[in-house]
Amino acid sequence: MFEKVLIANRGEIALRIHRACREMGIKTVAVHSTADADAMHVRLANESVCIGPPSATDSYLNIPAIISACEITGADAVHPGYGFLSENAKFADILKAHGITFIGPSGDHIRLMGDKIQAKVTAKSLGIPCVPGSDGAITTDEQAYKVAEETGYPVLVKAAAGGGGRGMKVARSRGELSSALSTARAEAKAAFGDDALYMEKYLGQPRHIEVQVIADSHGNVAHLGERDCSLQRRHQKVLEESPSPALNTAQRAEIGGIVSKAIKGLGYLGVGTIEFLYEDGQFFFIEMNTRLQVEHPITEAVTGIDIVREQIRIAAGMEMSFTQDDVEFSGHAIECRINAEDPKTFAPSPGTIKDFHTPGGLGVRVDSAVYSGYRIPPYYDSLIGKLVVHGRNRNECLMRLRRSLHEFVIDGIKTTIPLFQELVNEPDFINGEYHIHWLEDFLKKNA
Amino acid sequence: MFEKVLIANRGEIALRIHRACREMGIKTVAVHSTADADAMHVRLANESVCIGPPSATDSYLNIPAIISACEITGADAVHPGYGFLSENAKFADILKAHGITFIGPSGDHIRLMGDKIQAKVTAKSLGIPCVPGSDGAITTDEQAYKVAEETGYPVLVKAAAGGGGRGMKVARSRGELSSALSTARAEAKAAFGDDALYMEKYLGQPRHIEVQVIADSHGNVAHLGERDCSLQRRHQKVLEESPSPALNTAQRAEIGGIVSKAIKGLGYLGVGTIEFLYEDGQFFFIEMNTRLQVEHPITEAVTGIDIVREQIRIAAGMEMSFTQDDVEFSGHAIECRINAEDPKTFAPSPGTIKDFHTPGGLGVRVDSAVYSGYRIPPYYDSLIGKLVVHGRNRNECLMRLRRSLHEFVIDGIKTTIPLFQELVNEPDFINGEYHIHWLEDFLKKNA
Repeated sequence: MFEKVLIANRGEIALRIHRACREMGIKTVAVHSTADADAMHVRLANESVCIGPPSATDSYLNIPAIISACEITGADAVHPGYGFLSENAKFADILKAHGITFIGPSGDHIRLMGDKIQAKVTAKSLGIPCVPGSDGAITTDEQAYKVAEETGYPVLVKAAAGGGGRGMKVARSRGELSSALSTARAEAKAAFGDDALYMEKYLGQPRHIEVQVIADSHGNVAHLGERDCSLQRRHQKVLEESPSPALNTAQRAEIGGIVSKAIKGLGYLGVGTIEFLYEDGQFFFIEMNTRLQVEHPITEAVTGIDIVREQIRIAAGMEMSFTQDDVEFSGHAIECRINAEDPKTFAPSPGTIKDFHTPGGLGVRVDSAVYSGYRIPPYYDSLIGKLVVHGRNRNECLMRLRRSLHEFVIDGIKTTIPLFQELVNEPDFINGEYHIHWLEDFLKKNA
Repeated sequence: MFEKVLIANRGEIALRIHRACREMGIKTVAVHSTADADAMHVRLANESVCIGPPSATDSYLNIPAIISACEITGADAVHPGYGFLSENAKFADILKAHGITFIGPSGDHIRLMGDKIQAKVTAKSLGIPCVPGSDGAITTDEQAYKVAEETGYPVLVKAAAGGGGRGMKVARSRGELSSALSTARAEAKAAFGDDALYMEKYLGQPRHIEVQVIADSHGNVAHLGERDCSLQRRHQKVLEESPSPALNTAQRAEIGGIVSKAIKGLGYLGVGTIEFLYEDGQFFFIEMNTRLQVEHPITEAVTGIDIVREQIRIAAGMEMSFTQDDVEFSGHAIECRINAEDPKTFAPSPGTIKDFHTPGGLGVRVDSAVYSGYRIPPYYDSLIGKLVVHGRNRNECLMRLRRSLHEFVIDGIKTTIPLFQELVNEPDFINGEYHIHWLEDFLKKNA
């Protein structure tokens, strides 16, 4: 096992990683920008190294400075957290060249999944369901009708050379498809000088459902169920829950099995997340994240498994501490991302936290790295805490979430807590009836 | 269901009860002494009523003031928490006479179990194992030898009229018993003017193991496993864990079954705890507590069941939300009672908390009612928080406990956190090898 892990991140996730290390008896090194000298991850780590000025490019993304910090402190592994260098294949390669373990998959796997087109080809070849459509460009209308009959209506006609919505049309029937093809062709020709089109199944109100997977170097692979992350604003997840209100046990086992098999086929090591759009009982691959996700705690809540500890074990060449048969899904969990933002305009609200008091009691977990008197610097992501609530079932979880949000005190700055206080009383949310556009619609209505 | 519950308590348990009520959609009334006007349970409750000056006799034990508070606020039920009026049969009777529900068992059951001699007779008649010994006084040496052979050595010879250790002798063999009888008779005669003796099995290094039970008015009864509360100082519990390191699954099911049957036989309603001494695989009844226990959260951690919510449901005449078959024991939990005391001398340390920062992350629960800037009044119990840690197994729980204790910041007063930081590294504790005298011995050694 590693003796000392350098945590190449900040905020709540740096503290989260520190906690896992400390529980395993591993010493930690915090790195920080000059703006984060008073941060909690710096206070709690065994050692800390300042790696640069506030700008992330010069500090948390500064590979030479982080390598130097490893060498100065003698760290034998690096945990990148999420964001920053967590999906930087070059960083993984450089660490390897320096004899330092990157706690994550190989550089090659990061690269493969980082290229979105290549990732889709790979996913399809591994048996992961992708959005059905034409294989390459469509040359005749008859060909288009045939593809549409295979995938089913509605379909999306897209300019092969396209982007930004131009040359893109939705067709809900053969009649609509006929006119969509001619309009799209004309638009594509006008916009891109190329009238080549391709088609795929159109998803109107899909959910975002992702599956947590994990694999070690001893041949063990498992999935830890799914997370429903459909509540998004500008493609940013806002609230996540596990299990998804849309799936049943058989569907969970089926998609989990498919994904586990694919991960094994890929020879992937560590934890990863396969993201899907989900509509009408079908999954469609979006992408794979080759790192820890912000929303991993809801999976921890329903499985009892410490995902960061498993990452560290696997990176050290150990077996993961469980097999698929050991995984029991228990109850329901919801995470709210508490941001230092105005809950109406979402404008960042940096400043000094006068009073910070977290909710407690049964089934309540708070992951945060702020404290009373802490000054939130204006340079980074506005996430200041995650409220994770667990109950025996979704209804209990919702009741507990409402009372926890009521108890949470963060004075001195604006936060998104009031947004969640509204959300938990919305009938659609209570009924689990929402999709990836629902939150944007809700915010427009309440603007 | 009740519309409004008055919480006749203070501190962390008042907040605990408030949380359960809020999750159930029940309004709460806090009562408080003048010393507790700024307490968190007062801040969070829907309404609050000042019931008297700081002295508990004049406030939290002041039955007329609490009844008045119910009438002023229209509360239809009272939760007494633990301590104060929680085992006061008269209080339960008076509430009933006023048409207010006491969230707890009947006054008669409180009275029955409050009389320790009557409780033992009742327990024995219900099939609960009690310490074996003579039935009443011993009149001849031959009778004593016979009893000793039945119970097994060592035995304890006690003056029937005794107390304070006088006339009390331990005998480990027939030879020792012969001399113990004559010495004890002489001492008893001298001390109490009465040489009547009785005998019971002597327990040298027993553990304190208690079983949580619950019963509703629909005929449902269940046990929620045991808690090991052997770590005590001056008969006060300091740290508790569930399950007990000393029991296996079969033993748990057996004692749980015995206790459930007894509770059903008693016609008891609500939650209760049957306390035992445990030695060499045998249980010996001590007493029954007819209320919520301080250490109930460790049972909640391993079962996922909100015990306070069940109390409220049962008091409202509803069925409990589960049956024995639904109860699954998952992992291991430990609670540390954080007291505002000097960790070496145990002298109370009231004062103002300058900084209060609780540990977070997976498997960590903090129940507390204090906050940064809170002034601990000197009038009440020194318990200011409970750190409850849950893991998939005892080892994981211990690792998590160590790191949580490391993270807990309470500045401005002295607390017992340093004592727990020592305890979690003691080999006997790590191995689960301790008994009810172990902590006193440990404290003497380290004095």
